[in-house]
Amino acid sequence: MLNAIISKHQATLEQAVQALHGRTFFSQYPENPSPKVYGAEADAQGREAFLGRRGQSFAELQQGAPEAWAGQEESPYEQAALGIKYPYYAPETLVHNAQQAFDAWRKLKPAYRAALLIESLEGMKQRFFEIGYATMHTTGQAFLMSFQASGPHAADRALEAVAAGYEEQTRFPEETRWDKPMGKYTIRLNKTWRPVPKGVALVIGCSTFPTWNTVPGMYASLVTGNPVVIKPHPKAVLPIAIVVAEVQKVLVAAGLPATICQLAVDADDHLITKELAEHPTVKLIDYTGGTEFGNYIESLQSKGKTVFTEKTGVNSVILDSCDDLDKVAQNLAFSVSLYSGQMCTAPQNFFIPEQGVKVAGTLVPFEEVVQKLAGAVQGLATNPKAAPHVLGAIQNPATHERVEQMAQSGHRNVLAHGKVQNSTFQNARTCSPALYEVDATLKEHFSRELFGPIMLAIKTKNSHESVKLAAELAREYGAISCAAYTTDAELKEEIMDQMSLAGTAVSFNLTGGFYVNQNAAFSDFHVTGGNPAGNASFTNPEFVLKRFTWVGFREPIAS
Amino acid sequence: MLNAIISKHQATLEQAVQALHGRTFFSQYPENPSPKVYGAEADAQGREAFLGRRGQSFAELQQGAPEAWAGQEESPYEQAALGIKYPYYAPETLVHNAQQAFDAWRKLKPAYRAALLIESLEGMKQRFFEIGYATMHTTGQAFLMSFQASGPHAADRALEAVAAGYEEQTRFPEETRWDKPMGKYTIRLNKTWRPVPKGVALVIGCSTFPTWNTVPGMYASLVTGNPVVIKPHPKAVLPIAIVVAEVQKVLVAAGLPATICQLAVDADDHLITKELAEHPTVKLIDYTGGTEFGNYIESLQSKGKTVFTEKTGVNSVILDSCDDLDKVAQNLAFSVSLYSGQMCTAPQNFFIPEQGVKVAGTLVPFEEVVQKLAGAVQGLATNPKAAPHVLGAIQNPATHERVEQMAQSGHRNVLAHGKVQNSTFQNARTCSPALYEVDATLKEHFSRELFGPIMLAIKTKNSHESVKLAAELAREYGAISCAAYTTDAELKEEIMDQMSLAGTAVSFNLTGGFYVNQNAAFSDFHVTGGNPAGNASFTNPEFVLKRFTWVGFREPIAS
Repeated sequence: MLNAIISKHQATLEQAVQALHGRTFFSQYPENPSPKVYGAEADAQGREAFLGRRGQSFAELQQGAPEAWAGQEESPYEQAALGIKYPYYAPETLVHNAQQAFDAWRKLKPAYRAALLIESLEGMKQRFFEIGYATMHTTGQAFLMSFQASGPHAADRALEAVAAGYEEQTRFPEETRWDKPMGKYTIRLNKTWRPVPKGVALVIGCSTFPTWNTVPGMYASLVTGNPVVIKPHPKAVLPIAIVVAEVQKVLVAAGLPATICQLAVDADDHLITKELAEHPTVKLIDYTGGTEFGNYIESLQSKGKTVFTEKTGVNSVILDSCDDLDKVAQNLAFSVSLYSGQMCTAPQNFFIPEQGVKVAGTLVPFEEVVQKLAGAVQGLATNPKAAPHVLGAIQNPATHERVEQMAQSGHRNVLAHGKVQNSTFQNARTCSPALYEVDATLKEHFSRELFGPIMLAIKTKNSHESVKLAAELAREYGAISCAAYTTDAELKEEIMDQMSLAGTAVSFNLTGGFYVNQNAAFSDFHVTGGNPAGNASFTNPEFVLKRFTWVGFREPIAS
Repeated sequence: MLNAIISKHQATLEQAVQALHGRTFFSQYPENPSPKVYGAEADAQGREAFLGRRGQSFAELQQGAPEAWAGQEESPYEQAALGIKYPYYAPETLVHNAQQAFDAWRKLKPAYRAALLIESLEGMKQRFFEIGYATMHTTGQAFLMSFQASGPHAADRALEAVAAGYEEQTRFPEETRWDKPMGKYTIRLNKTWRPVPKGVALVIGCSTFPTWNTVPGMYASLVTGNPVVIKPHPKAVLPIAIVVAEVQKVLVAAGLPATICQLAVDADDHLITKELAEHPTVKLIDYTGGTEFGNYIESLQSKGKTVFTEKTGVNSVILDSCDDLDKVAQNLAFSVSLYSGQMCTAPQNFFIPEQGVKVAGTLVPFEEVVQKLAGAVQGLATNPKAAPHVLGAIQNPATHERVEQMAQSGHRNVLAHGKVQNSTFQNARTCSPALYEVDATLKEHFSRELFGPIMLAIKTKNSHESVKLAAELAREYGAISCAAYTTDAELKEEIMDQMSLAGTAVSFNLTGGFYVNQNAAFSDFHVTGGNPAGNASFTNPEFVLKRFTWVGFREPIAS
């Protein structure tokens, strides 16, 4: 079993490690949900499988007899409960079981753990459509994004973490001989090293990207030998529950405890995340979600825990100059509309110089630029063929309320939010983007993340002020993405320099079918870890290294 | 200049990177202070240079006009002031100057920074003897250790940090092309990445190893593009001041600000470390020293600073079985005597089973083992030819007092401490190791580090209890080294497994001329970062990675 499964996935693992360093395009799991790729029945079967779970207990887990059943998911498309119940275990049970499973898992070779984890991704691949529908009806993402983000893109991110973790654990020799010449004699030592996992890991998921944001930490902790407890957001459990079930299948088939990878759900009457996070046996925590809770999770570092966070940021667009303003507006309109601005990479603050944007050598006035943006957003949101598939639905009623409250903000409303028509789901909770103009001096009005479809146009003195503000916000409040449009090489370098110091990746001059929101595994580091939007990055070496410790042993060689 | 200096040191850099991964013996700077290696005059010139500094102002630094002069070093060999005064600058001045120098330094390519830093190590090499005498008369180390630890071994550790930092910064491509096939068309992006330094770095030194423990963090921060402020212990400034002067020489010769690497000294009437550490502009802190202050430094992580610590630990010896108890006792006697137990790697707790130690198949009773250890220590400490050169002098009067107070501890005194005769320095502050027997149930009596020449013999039920206690102490209170003696393969694996979970390196069955205290650059990770003795390790990838952030940029390629 051991050697067979290592051989089976060796080529994939090696290609993945290579891809990490080449950073050219690489994807192991096709993003196209076409019957040609996944088979003629895959979509229908996946939908059926999802529908069949509604109102049922999720019985696929093998982590022991449940202490209760709990579940509170609802579809943003139907605004109705899914009725799925998951096995509930008290935090103490989960942590105890994880600790019990630690020895069996940590003593395996990294290559074997990596192979078992890739095997589980093969199992996940068989269920991408089911996971897609599960994601759609928990997060409100449109189906295509649900499929891609929670299926192949997430699996690629998981493979990336496996590859990075495997590489780091094999970067120093298991054994070597150290011969120190001392003149008349030689000191000869045999030396060995072990990458030692830190212990029980907790991964806390969010409500909008239940697998994409969970699997990197989950697979990174697992490949480095740590048992994990996966604690999804109570409103988005099913997509990751399926992934956990696939991992457990592989573990059990290999004669290992299923409790190496457990699902933890909140009870219906109380949340369990804090109790899990504060448990002294928990050594590693991955977190995706709001900043306030994220700061609390980061504070647990003072208790000796290693913490990886992705919180929230204020993403900027710097508009200086371009060749074709219509193309720019269309690209940005798509970026803000995609999943109704509920992406951590969605732009919020649009910095535009008061004298306007230089388009093919001619200045287009500020107001015209703003109207162009508004028009492009409006055009997309009212296009009945495109809108529902781009904007999806609003996951959380609070997001919708936030957009409505902006109307009372006193800022000039350039474009009002509206309803997005969805002919399939008439009850869908929808909201198209609103655009407000905010004065550049009112920094406190645009320095918070306004999660959801809210755009702010900020009139600056010039592009240098735009860069200064974007960098300052990123440095002080965090940012995950930045889009910049300039044809001026000097300004481009200024943007790269200032945004790099603010730990923020920049996409320049995007038009056409690629958007600032997109971050590809094996090429784009997601979040840099270098500003308050999060302390971790998918997947830089730090993301895996901090999950284990190098320990060395030495002994004289008998001469 | 740029290309010439890169070429000059390229082979060294490449060999060093290779050595990091081979982890076989590698040393760039010869540890033998022989005239054959360093020239017939080197020793005399180095001594002269040191003597010439006494009572003078240290005028080699090029970091700007001093605000005052300060210095309070004294020789533990003479118990008299050295009278050297160093330029004093207020923390605000130092941090401001460092921040001003940041741009010039961070914009250089990693290869150029690495080459300049290796050039500075060549300059340091020319002054190993002077640094040796400076170390001897500040720390109390005997001359051979002073020379080796502060000279070649420190320079090797610095080169190791340079190599690791260079490798990590060049581990991802500067630029690549990302072509994503979309079926009917291809998305083509040009992508670039930059390793972005975090900002002003502070390195806080200790009184016992003023260069060895300072240069890893110093060179790691520098090679990754961060300006550094070096704040030595007020009692051990000169050795590192010389190194800083050498770095400044190279910087100035390259047309760079000397303030990229500054020396910071305490004022004679107040200490400045906290003010420096808490300064919001300071982003990185390296610290070596006591646990209490180290915990305070670690607490600054909650203010967004990246912190690397080496604090203190309780090092164990596990005595189970061996072939030749005399050889074991001699080896351990040397380890505890070396620099009078003032090494962070010196053993303190000797766990010995109540039924004794199996020697070549025969049980030697507990009491006989203890007496054997005491005898070996006594033999070394009273050997007039060897003792002064092994034990050196006591750096801090408090260390001497600690040994004296142990006499009132109520524990059975097996071997009393004594004076070490030193015919050259009659006034030397000396103290030979004392050995006490402490009951295994009195954990609170052996769970603190008793810095200095204090050995505790702890009678355990059996070797499993020895391992359990050693691992528990390491996990809960920290440990930097562990020596184990066993001929039993199963127990050996038990020790490796338990001590690895406690993040502690183990040396097995050392006899002859190699000691548990020794940690070689390019092979032994010093401190693992995996227990309370410190959160950092010389030099694992984490030690350099956390000093910079990967930031990516991308832009469509015009088709």
